[in-house]
Amino acid sequence: MGKGDDTRAAALSEATEIAARLGLAGLTIGDLATAAGMSKSGLYAHFRSKEALQLATLASARESFNDTVMRPALATPRGEQRVRALFERWITAARDDWPAGCLFVSAATEFDDRPGRVRDQLVRDHLDLLDAIAQVFRTGVSEGQFRSDADPMQFAQDLNGVMLGFLHAHRLLRDPDAQARARRAFALLLAGARNLESQAA
Amino acid sequence: MGKGDDTRAAALSEATEIAARLGLAGLTIGDLATAAGMSKSGLYAHFRSKEALQLATLASARESFNDTVMRPALATPRGEQRVRALFERWITAARDDWPAGCLFVSAATEFDDRPGRVRDQLVRDHLDLLDAIAQVFRTGVSEGQFRSDADPMQFAQDLNGVMLGFLHAHRLLRDPDAQARARRAFALLLAGARNLESQAA
Repeated sequence: MGKGDDTRAAALSEATEIAARLGLAGLTIGDLATAAGMSKSGLYAHFRSKEALQLATLASARESFNDTVMRPALATPRGEQRVRALFERWITAARDDWPAGCLFVSAATEFDDRPGRVRDQLVRDHLDLLDAIAQVFRTGVSEGQFRSDADPMQFAQDLNGVMLGFLHAHRLLRDPDAQARARRAFALLLAGARNLESQAA
Repeated sequence: MGKGDDTRAAALSEATEIAARLGLAGLTIGDLATAAGMSKSGLYAHFRSKEALQLATLASARESFNDTVMRPALATPRGEQRVRALFERWITAARDDWPAGCLFVSAATEFDDRPGRVRDQLVRDHLDLLDAIAQVFRTGVSEGQFRSDADPMQFAQDLNGVMLGFLHAHRLLRDPDAQARARRAFALLLAGARNLESQAA
């Protein structure tokens, strides 16, 4: 990476943290310059506009999620094991790697009523996430571990709900039992999906 | 109600809508005056400070939720029927009565990192909600419809997760299947809680 890339990466790391803590909608190049100790004109040269900065921040958070959660999960064996790896990576990252919470969760409620390029990108990111969960779940169906009539998109919305319920209890309520409950909810989802014939065999 | 009470109620109704759409953290007396077509000095006389306005807006939204969802559910017969009434009232309100989304959901991610009186009130409101869900669930245990070893707080976090997953898919993604999936997830939660001996009897 050249010096410009370093600066850009450092700025985006700071921007992700500010956006998760205080909101993506209010993230401005001026705020970021102050927080990162960089010059406003230098940051303008990188990002050009508030909207471009917001989109670059989402792209950076998306890459980070894919690197930490999705790609390692996809490297595990197909089937229930891969679904479990996805859940483990996700809940561990939510607990340890996002000190200011999940940017995609806070941005979703901020932008659901704000039409524009940022909302459009958030919709694509969330559809991609749900599709990726459904695709991981399907490997369990094709391996015969999950019922053939189980609905992968149902599982995706359900797992997303388990994670949202966890983040809510963990972040707002600081509930020490939040993670254990999320694990039991996930176990119940898996139990509902399992192919009982395959278990009996 | 006197004229002052009318003004206050109208202002809070407007404030709830603005806060759900654009955020509670950014809600100011100035913004509200512009949106409601009221004088800023008149609103200051009612609310005194931005924080007092935020707390009054939360109180108004809480009353509205209790009137629409919680009290009618508590008026139904104890047990599974009451749990179903709670879910039906809640998902119907989320679909029909909150055009700008759920204020408590958006405020939760806005304030989870902002210590102060608004965050403290949000925590109390969410704990009250989870306790109320658990209490409704317990009537099903004492009526013998749910397993005696079922965990009411587990059910509360799970049901909250189902609603958060629904709101997310409905509000951000405008997914027409979001509600049907939330209903199936709720049915699975109930199935997991049921007392099989009572059903066999």
